[in-house]
Amino acid sequence: MTRMQPIVDFILELDKLKAVTRATRPLGLDRYENSAEHSWQIAMLAVSLEPFAPGEVDIDRVVHLLLVHDIGEIDTGDTIVYAEDGWEARKAAERAAAARIFGLLPGAGGAQLLALWQEFEDAATPEARFAHAVDRAMPALLNLANAGQSWREHGITHARVVARIGPPIRAGCPALWSYLEARLDQANRAGWFGARDGAAAATRISQEP
Amino acid sequence: MTRMQPIVDFILELDKLKAVTRATRPLGLDRYENSAEHSWQIAMLAVSLEPFAPGEVDIDRVVHLLLVHDIGEIDTGDTIVYAEDGWEARKAAERAAAARIFGLLPGAGGAQLLALWQEFEDAATPEARFAHAVDRAMPALLNLANAGQSWREHGITHARVVARIGPPIRAGCPALWSYLEARLDQANRAGWFGARDGAAAATRISQEP
Repeated sequence: MTRMQPIVDFILELDKLKAVTRATRPLGLDRYENSAEHSWQIAMLAVSLEPFAPGEVDIDRVVHLLLVHDIGEIDTGDTIVYAEDGWEARKAAERAAAARIFGLLPGAGGAQLLALWQEFEDAATPEARFAHAVDRAMPALLNLANAGQSWREHGITHARVVARIGPPIRAGCPALWSYLEARLDQANRAGWFGARDGAAAATRISQEP
Repeated sequence: MTRMQPIVDFILELDKLKAVTRATRPLGLDRYENSAEHSWQIAMLAVSLEPFAPGEVDIDRVVHLLLVHDIGEIDTGDTIVYAEDGWEARKAAERAAAARIFGLLPGAGGAQLLALWQEFEDAATPEARFAHAVDRAMPALLNLANAGQSWREHGITHARVVARIGPPIRAGCPALWSYLEARLDQANRAGWFGARDGAAAATRISQEP
């Protein structure tokens, strides 16, 4: 029992990720999605996108990266990708959180999970770049199926979306960006983005540099 | 774009798993958990339990089994494990649902995911047995941290829990059952289970054979 208890403590700590809410709503639901169900969905998206992954990508490791990548949010909460100020401070706080939470797991297990979390953050391996592409694409895919829900709620323009998610998606999964770029153009013509100077953007999201 | 669209259709269909609710509540939240966030949590539990997995178990495949195992519930909803009647009919409905949903994915991808789903159902490989152990243990671990919440809400007795989850957990991960058996005994002494003839059991859960 003494060797099992730290694992139980760890998995119960992870339960808190179910309470971390994101900017995107699940399709057809009034509530916002949480980071736990998001992590499941992007793991499934990575598996589904395997035919479009660059040849050297190990999908099993991508899945592990995606399962752990948001766990730091248990202490910090989710931050919409379009927030510009304070990014470094938030990342440092997430890093401290990840060290605390994965530190609950004894032996090599916690260190391995923290290394996966850091690999995602560094975005320096093909797996981490593919994982970033998948993570950035998913809320866009939900918005494209939901009349631009979070873009409109937060006053995010088409140009801003393209500038923010285009480079990482293109870097990690070029075919996915080719698809999304065309869909985002269609959505722009449909008026599914925030206005350039939307009040929501001014109050909820800090100014771009 | 034409090759990418079926993958997008598939991942948006999977979004519906976020709306499938289970009998267990996340710790500290008023709502019930959904099968999407549950799938993420048990994938993390499997990874964390790797030191206690039987030697031949491939944890990467366990993670894949757990990520897909509840997807049939998109059409059928979740059924508490203590429901006894109609199990075969529900399983047939879930099988049809899995075939429909994984059939959205073109090429080999959908067939591979359906094969994983079926492998979990069959529980004939060490990976599937380990996955079952993890899946059955997680709601018990949440209940043990939550004063027996779903056991009490549904009037499930200690004997019934032991009879239902003991064999699959022991078969897939003996060390996990040794731990849980002792914790369940403690919980029984604490009064965290339903009474033998609880009204909730009589109305919501069918009779044991």
